[in-house]
Amino acid sequence: MNPITGEWTIIATERAKRPHLPNRAEEIIHSGDAHDPECFFCYGNEYTTPPEVFSYREKQGAPDSPGWTLRVVPNKYSALSLNGEFSIENKGLLEFSSHARGSAEVVIESPHHTLNTALFPEPQIELLLKAYKQRYNFLCQDPSVKYIAMFKNNGSPAGASLSHPHSQIIATPVIPPLIEQELAGAKKYFKEHNRCVYCDMAESELENRSRIIYENNEFLAFAPYASKSPFETWVMPRFHSSAYNRLNDKQLKSLSEVWKKVLYKIYRGLDNPPYNYFIHTSPTQENAGNFFHWHMELIPKMTIMAGFELGTGMCINIAIPEQSAEYLRGIV
Amino acid sequence: MNPITGEWTIIATERAKRPHLPNRAEEIIHSGDAHDPECFFCYGNEYTTPPEVFSYREKQGAPDSPGWTLRVVPNKYSALSLNGEFSIENKGLLEFSSHARGSAEVVIESPHHTLNTALFPEPQIELLLKAYKQRYNFLCQDPSVKYIAMFKNNGSPAGASLSHPHSQIIATPVIPPLIEQELAGAKKYFKEHNRCVYCDMAESELENRSRIIYENNEFLAFAPYASKSPFETWVMPRFHSSAYNRLNDKQLKSLSEVWKKVLYKIYRGLDNPPYNYFIHTSPTQENAGNFFHWHMELIPKMTIMAGFELGTGMCINIAIPEQSAEYLRGIV
Repeated sequence: MNPITGEWTIIATERAKRPHLPNRAEEIIHSGDAHDPECFFCYGNEYTTPPEVFSYREKQGAPDSPGWTLRVVPNKYSALSLNGEFSIENKGLLEFSSHARGSAEVVIESPHHTLNTALFPEPQIELLLKAYKQRYNFLCQDPSVKYIAMFKNNGSPAGASLSHPHSQIIATPVIPPLIEQELAGAKKYFKEHNRCVYCDMAESELENRSRIIYENNEFLAFAPYASKSPFETWVMPRFHSSAYNRLNDKQLKSLSEVWKKVLYKIYRGLDNPPYNYFIHTSPTQENAGNFFHWHMELIPKMTIMAGFELGTGMCINIAIPEQSAEYLRGIV
Repeated sequence: MNPITGEWTIIATERAKRPHLPNRAEEIIHSGDAHDPECFFCYGNEYTTPPEVFSYREKQGAPDSPGWTLRVVPNKYSALSLNGEFSIENKGLLEFSSHARGSAEVVIESPHHTLNTALFPEPQIELLLKAYKQRYNFLCQDPSVKYIAMFKNNGSPAGASLSHPHSQIIATPVIPPLIEQELAGAKKYFKEHNRCVYCDMAESELENRSRIIYENNEFLAFAPYASKSPFETWVMPRFHSSAYNRLNDKQLKSLSEVWKKVLYKIYRGLDNPPYNYFIHTSPTQENAGNFFHWHMELIPKMTIMAGFELGTGMCINIAIPEQSAEYLRGIV
């Protein structure tokens, strides 16, 4: 059972014997051409995206021109916009908002068209993690923004619609349900124990050690006890912190070391599987400092969410987290 | 916003213009051979499954021999078993059960190897819906069973591992989180209004009419207001009832008419898409009679759950429910 949300996972190794094994990466992208003249995200095609809102450049250069090392642009096909007013209206039973205020941005992680994020040099991973923080700090100033989701879809089976490595940042005008659940669970635990449940989890994992994948002095990567899918990996700070955007430069550097290792272990150990990762951090306007603890979750897409999972919200995991962790520990 | 669970959905038609449209049925099964000698679920191969626990036969016949019109067998690759004790143990932070007591059964819906459920004659649909009820009534007698999930995965992209039409019934020793959420939402609404939220929803849909897909005197099929994915379809009784297994024969016949229409509209209108459907009904031991209302949800798999959905629990729906409903109304 997930000690934060109270959700049960069924660990069912019997199912690994099913006649058709769950589908694996349908598409394996290995590093190829650095540049694709047709790609919206490659050098020279900056005019095909909406104007950039942020970039890192080694040398000075005009916005929306080549030379950047990382570039953030509004999502051309955005579900949300920061123009207009978010208001909840009430039509009898049905609450709705005619305009979902918020924003959606794409982080173009590197100029290299095919270099998998797992193969980035560590300083480029550091730039990426720093860009998340800087965009967060900008977006959270808008008073209508209640939560900022930072995530990545790797590979088309995991929902990436373009192959050039990119992440996404979506600011929403409501606190999403999964965040509400984690906040509620963590708050309850704090009230009962006067401690952070994530800090206790880290301590317990470090004592037990069987689910640890990698660690340094500041961060811990592990396979959570109630993993919902094979090789699910969490990274969290060993020090207590509720908000990702409070990371200082030294901590960002340390996180980059762990995150690069995690991405590489997943890439090499599972042969570049499709995956999703996301950061869970405190809502922008909630004082969750005592009881919440930010963390990253990476979920390789090894199975299909089918009728049971969709209908019940329970997951059947065909891998034992201790075995997943042992396997990933061995990949260097 | 879903008035029961309070979940928000973002309806984002802009995203329909994304460069790559969401993937559609990877596999379209049209009716072909009635019999496949290699199939575990076809006549003559009854010995390849665990012994049947239930069947309908037009004439007398020995169990596990051909001649059945519908057959229920334990899932060979089950995550759960009714042998052994379910008990929750506490190891510090981590609650666990070493044995997930419960059961998993497969309903082989017809002897015909390739006939899509949507093309079944109505009496065969009725048998299927009746089999769910009969197995429910058997399984709910076990005091350790807290919930019974009845669902179907159609097509391999939706998680079906065998193509012979089949559904599944899984009895669990805990009330699953999505059911807990719906119960809590419905209970809250009942306390505030002294009415069932689903009854009010049905009334509101019948007044508004724009999201109705099909109806008869007893049942209503509609595209819910906060549909999480394109062409999501709900069917529920127009009369108040918390428990699927209380359907009488007349009601089962009436439900079969509506369900057959829904399956056919989805099959024909969307060219046999992969889909999942499930029944949400009252937990076995909860007195939810006043405030809960059983219903069926069918979700065509037209999009991928990616980082945003997995990380936030919010869905971005690229179709407007009113337009989905209008389209499906037109398919006859």
